[in-house]
Amino acid sequence: MDGKMKAIVKDRRAPGATLQEVPIPKIGDQEVLIQVKATSICGTDLHIYTWDEWSQSRVKPPYVFGHEFAGIVVEKGKLVNNVEIGDHVSAETHIVCGHCPQCLTGQAHICANTEIIGVDRDGCFAEYVALPAENMWKNDPSLPFDEASVQEPFGNAVHTVLAGDVVGKTVAVIGCGPIGMMAVGVAKAAGAAQVIAFDLNDYRLNLAKDMGATRTVNSLNENPLEVVKSLTNGQGVDVVCEMSGHPIAMDQGFKMVTNGGRVSILSLPVKPVEIDVTNDIVFKGITVQGITGRKMYQTWQQVAGLLQSGQVDLKQMITHHFPLEDFDKGFELMIEGKCGKVVLHP
Amino acid sequence: MDGKMKAIVKDRRAPGATLQEVPIPKIGDQEVLIQVKATSICGTDLHIYTWDEWSQSRVKPPYVFGHEFAGIVVEKGKLVNNVEIGDHVSAETHIVCGHCPQCLTGQAHICANTEIIGVDRDGCFAEYVALPAENMWKNDPSLPFDEASVQEPFGNAVHTVLAGDVVGKTVAVIGCGPIGMMAVGVAKAAGAAQVIAFDLNDYRLNLAKDMGATRTVNSLNENPLEVVKSLTNGQGVDVVCEMSGHPIAMDQGFKMVTNGGRVSILSLPVKPVEIDVTNDIVFKGITVQGITGRKMYQTWQQVAGLLQSGQVDLKQMITHHFPLEDFDKGFELMIEGKCGKVVLHP
Amino acid sequence: MDGKMKAIVKDRRAPGATLQEVPIPKIGDQEVLIQVKATSICGTDLHIYTWDEWSQSRVKPPYVFGHEFAGIVVEKGKLVNNVEIGDHVSAETHIVCGHCPQCLTGQAHICANTEIIGVDRDGCFAEYVALPAENMWKNDPSLPFDEASVQEPFGNAVHTVLAGDVVGKTVAVIGCGPIGMMAVGVAKAAGAAQVIAFDLNDYRLNLAKDMGATRTVNSLNENPLEVVKSLTNGQGVDVVCEMSGHPIAMDQGFKMVTNGGRVSILSLPVKPVEIDVTNDIVFKGITVQGITGRKMYQTWQQVAGLLQSGQVDLKQMITHHFPLEDFDKGFELMIEGKCGKVVLHP
Amino acid sequence: MDGKMKAIVKDRRAPGATLQEVPIPKIGDQEVLIQVKATSICGTDLHIYTWDEWSQSRVKPPYVFGHEFAGIVVEKGKLVNNVEIGDHVSAETHIVCGHCPQCLTGQAHICANTEIIGVDRDGCFAEYVALPAENMWKNDPSLPFDEASVQEPFGNAVHTVLAGDVVGKTVAVIGCGPIGMMAVGVAKAAGAAQVIAFDLNDYRLNLAKDMGATRTVNSLNENPLEVVKSLTNGQGVDVVCEMSGHPIAMDQGFKMVTNGGRVSILSLPVKPVEIDVTNDIVFKGITVQGITGRKMYQTWQQVAGLLQSGQVDLKQMITHHFPLEDFDKGFELMIEGKCGKVVLHP
Repeated sequence: MDGKMKAIVKDRRAPGATLQEVPIPKIGDQEVLIQVKATSICGTDLHIYTWDEWSQSRVKPPYVFGHEFAGIVVEKGKLVNNVEIGDHVSAETHIVCGHCPQCLTGQAHICANTEIIGVDRDGCFAEYVALPAENMWKNDPSLPFDEASVQEPFGNAVHTVLAGDVVGKTVAVIGCGPIGMMAVGVAKAAGAAQVIAFDLNDYRLNLAKDMGATRTVNSLNENPLEVVKSLTNGQGVDVVCEMSGHPIAMDQGFKMVTNGGRVSILSLPVKPVEIDVTNDIVFKGITVQGITGRKMYQTWQQVAGLLQSGQVDLKQMITHHFPLEDFDKGFELMIEGKCGKVVLHP
Repeated sequence: MDGKMKAIVKDRRAPGATLQEVPIPKIGDQEVLIQVKATSICGTDLHIYTWDEWSQSRVKPPYVFGHEFAGIVVEKGKLVNNVEIGDHVSAETHIVCGHCPQCLTGQAHICANTEIIGVDRDGCFAEYVALPAENMWKNDPSLPFDEASVQEPFGNAVHTVLAGDVVGKTVAVIGCGPIGMMAVGVAKAAGAAQVIAFDLNDYRLNLAKDMGATRTVNSLNENPLEVVKSLTNGQGVDVVCEMSGHPIAMDQGFKMVTNGGRVSILSLPVKPVEIDVTNDIVFKGITVQGITGRKMYQTWQQVAGLLQSGQVDLKQMITHHFPLEDFDKGFELMIEGKCGKVVLHP
Repeated sequence: MDGKMKAIVKDRRAPGATLQEVPIPKIGDQEVLIQVKATSICGTDLHIYTWDEWSQSRVKPPYVFGHEFAGIVVEKGKLVNNVEIGDHVSAETHIVCGHCPQCLTGQAHICANTEIIGVDRDGCFAEYVALPAENMWKNDPSLPFDEASVQEPFGNAVHTVLAGDVVGKTVAVIGCGPIGMMAVGVAKAAGAAQVIAFDLNDYRLNLAKDMGATRTVNSLNENPLEVVKSLTNGQGVDVVCEMSGHPIAMDQGFKMVTNGGRVSILSLPVKPVEIDVTNDIVFKGITVQGITGRKMYQTWQQVAGLLQSGQVDLKQMITHHFPLEDFDKGFELMIEGKCGKVVLHP
Repeated sequence: MDGKMKAIVKDRRAPGATLQEVPIPKIGDQEVLIQVKATSICGTDLHIYTWDEWSQSRVKPPYVFGHEFAGIVVEKGKLVNNVEIGDHVSAETHIVCGHCPQCLTGQAHICANTEIIGVDRDGCFAEYVALPAENMWKNDPSLPFDEASVQEPFGNAVHTVLAGDVVGKTVAVIGCGPIGMMAVGVAKAAGAAQVIAFDLNDYRLNLAKDMGATRTVNSLNENPLEVVKSLTNGQGVDVVCEMSGHPIAMDQGFKMVTNGGRVSILSLPVKPVEIDVTNDIVFKGITVQGITGRKMYQTWQQVAGLLQSGQVDLKQMITHHFPLEDFDKGFELMIEGKCGKVVLHP
């Protein structure tokens, strides 16, 4: 397909980005071209937009960023046989090597040779995106594009919450950014008896409540450990989903989990964290899990199952919609913490 | 505690039973006496009532039968330290040896030396019942007695459905007697994307629908395999909960499960079943599980979590209530298949 | 690569096969050409050779059969990037679709669209074989070709035995053909306390003993259930690896497994089997697993780890070596049951 | 049983202990009296002997310490029905409440109400010890008393190594005190392809080698991370068993584990440890497990299976035997690090 398209280009080694006209990308024999119908903004995109330390060391402007989207296949390479033109798709954003021990044993999401869409190569904040066919996830055509677009971060939430059993258990979600809110919904849909959500931001706690939290705690106003104690007959929670990245909140997570419980960490604390290994891990006999990406493609199947059956309703946490051109407004809302998920429409 | 009490006594080696006045049982040092507030009728009780082949070979009249109940502790032996007088309780009905390899490794529910309440010793169709303290499960005092009474069979449903993961998956429940209905509710509460319920009885299928079935199938009117095919894009279901005991239905279960799926069998077919091991088990790479009892006490914790949080609402499938005296009416309804769960109130 | 090569061709719809000169196969862009250094005979090859009912319905002569081998990559397609010319390789024999729910969730070994090397397309009883690059398993160059050749069936044994835990447990291997012998070795290497091997053939039982069986039982001479009883303090075995396909032996397997145990079935009984579901599966609370193929590629990693560390020594059960030309001798030995594994050298 | 016995009494709030004559303990209805035939010294005993900070805060002299032993039941309370007089036994040293959520769900080893033999009540450095019958583990009478005595710490090693799969994998054991040495033996017996042992003490590394280490590393002389890199094709180890408690060694453990690997921590670092959660846990997608005690009684069954089958030979790491009177010699050897396991014979 020839021609030009609109795209948000990270065009400088400084904060900000620009809407530009760029060529529609060409596809290889094993790739597809997708017309983007909805694309949502991730925390990672915000890092790139604000040009933080991590993005300075990782990304190479100028390029098109963005990695969460839903769209329609409009062109396919000659070796592609898993999707057809017209298919509704989203993409797993980890492009993996396929040959390392992790890829060969069902752990491709932690392939050491991963390339990430919108970080290491052009992304989807654009009218079109070219991607390897094997990263496609076919969406049910009845799934609205905006909900389909947020499946990728929803997959992070699903991966974290369902890294162990939650049925009939008490689950704490620490940090209620968009993925935390979604984690609340997953825990509830998967049968948790109690879902306790922690944050410092009441706007987000309200969204967590809408997603099914049985109790929300603003940790500035209440002592998280006391609340947990009173809600669990002094036993502590069975599962902690750590999504704050804050060392104090993380420490509270280790303290509030019951003996034999699970702490699943999706967050990325910026510095090493002091952990009382003896008392908080060993004597309690707990399990700590590092969570990254989405299991390829077990997590996507769980995502599809939860969405299509209505077990989790993401509409209420997709709080803002903008045309692609107004991307700055979306980033500003995210900086202010006054939003759930923000979706752009090319 | 001295005195007399009302009890339903299986007093003959023939169909039927009688309401009698019998002595309130005495307790040992490691036992408790419970005042029964609600007791529900199980299929096993029906076998004993109708005096089928199994009960003729197993039970020894005269004795008090019944094993599902909720009540209040009114007396405790001097070595008892896990419950107090006034506690609301139900009981695990398997009294196990505690010393065999199964008991020593978290598999007490399949202890080969199990004694069953109301089968091998006096049960709870009475105003009072005496039981080992270690079989007590403490109920939340806010849980209504009738719902608390059916936790034991609900535990069978929980044990079966949750013998593997169901989140985002398609679950078939074959056979919608009371435990099947409950299994539907568990699967839905635990995040199943689709719950397909099969039976020959529309009354029961309607209750299954109320419990959350996304599709009900009367196998007399529709071809179960065709329905599954159309609902699963030709793939088959991920999980089969076999609760019918019927060889044709069981065979359909093996045929409708997808490659790599799970067939969990709680039912007790009366004769050996022909299974196409090569095509239905080996080439499909499936897992077949025999399920009996409740994990002691993981299942009870899951039960408590699901009930107290409202994730499963058992009220709608407790269809009938009678005073203890009217037990015959309850058994008749069960024979006719015109009921969900029947609860007696002493 | 141009030219001719020797190959064993299944050239007729009747018993037997012929050594012929055929063209060296051409490779596609995603394929490799391998010079075969050792190729071993599988039971499946024997079915094709003797032209049994299954092979009559499945294979389409004329074609080259054989699927177990080790060799060296001599040519690679232009899109191949996971192996290099000169690499020592064997192959996973299941060529899978990559897009079905099973392939997408780590269960590719039970992909419903599987094509099998040497069954559905040309195989490795030849000097060269052309195969998809993604089916390659790289061998340690120090691993002898004959041992590397039998990794595929060894993988079946590994998959079966390690489908659950065996450390400190009692494992029964029923049926001591080559895969059964290997299963004995795997169980022992993986820490089983007792490995009891059953067969009707003393030659094979002796090889099972060499592989580490702590007790061998010729079921014609001893009652398997009595032996198990006496060796397990009356408890039964923890794990049964069913590799006989015989209904009586299979029934004994269900009877000898302890409550809560595991029965993993790799064999392919030719007719449906009667199973006492109630007493042998449900009340015992056991797990029955259908096993086929090898997990891609977890099983291959386990295989490599066990072989390279010397935890299992396959040399003693590779009993016969022939040049490719003498394949008839190998098949005859297999028909007589007077061999472990037979390796052909092109 | 009346009379006096010899016992090692921690008789002061200061370093050291004394051999004294004390009354043979009386048993309760649910207890047994055991004649101690062999008792081994644990690191915990050494803490009590040297009167470190932990023991000052925990134990209450005067009392008899010691908790690892093997002996013969010589008297039983009237409610005891799981052991008989004459039985050879050892004991699980955690006396648990039986009623907390952990005890009720197969996690009794992390019961928050645990009382420890020889720490919180009289122990086994004596001719006789009185204990709850339900803590008895029956030994095979053919198992030598010294080997039977060290089953308790061997159970720690088994619990740690087998907290996940090791077959065909590369296992690092960091810290080769007695439990580390045993862990090496367990990993090897359970099918690990490589077992790499790390310590600063060559005497211990030699014992680790005897127990089956495929490579020993004195971390003062070699860079652990470089060694691992070269032994694992740059991938890192699959499993780390952390038994050193040293923050530098622990950090090396996190750095040497491969993506998706497991770090199982049995050690008790004296202070909080700084962990690079983002890079060493989250991005690597690893699992960290706190390990304490022994699973009751799955670990004991694994221990028995491994010992009775000869899969692990503990004789070589039981390096010293003394009569009870010479306990000071044993403690001195332990202080010097010049021993494997030290066994005392009353």
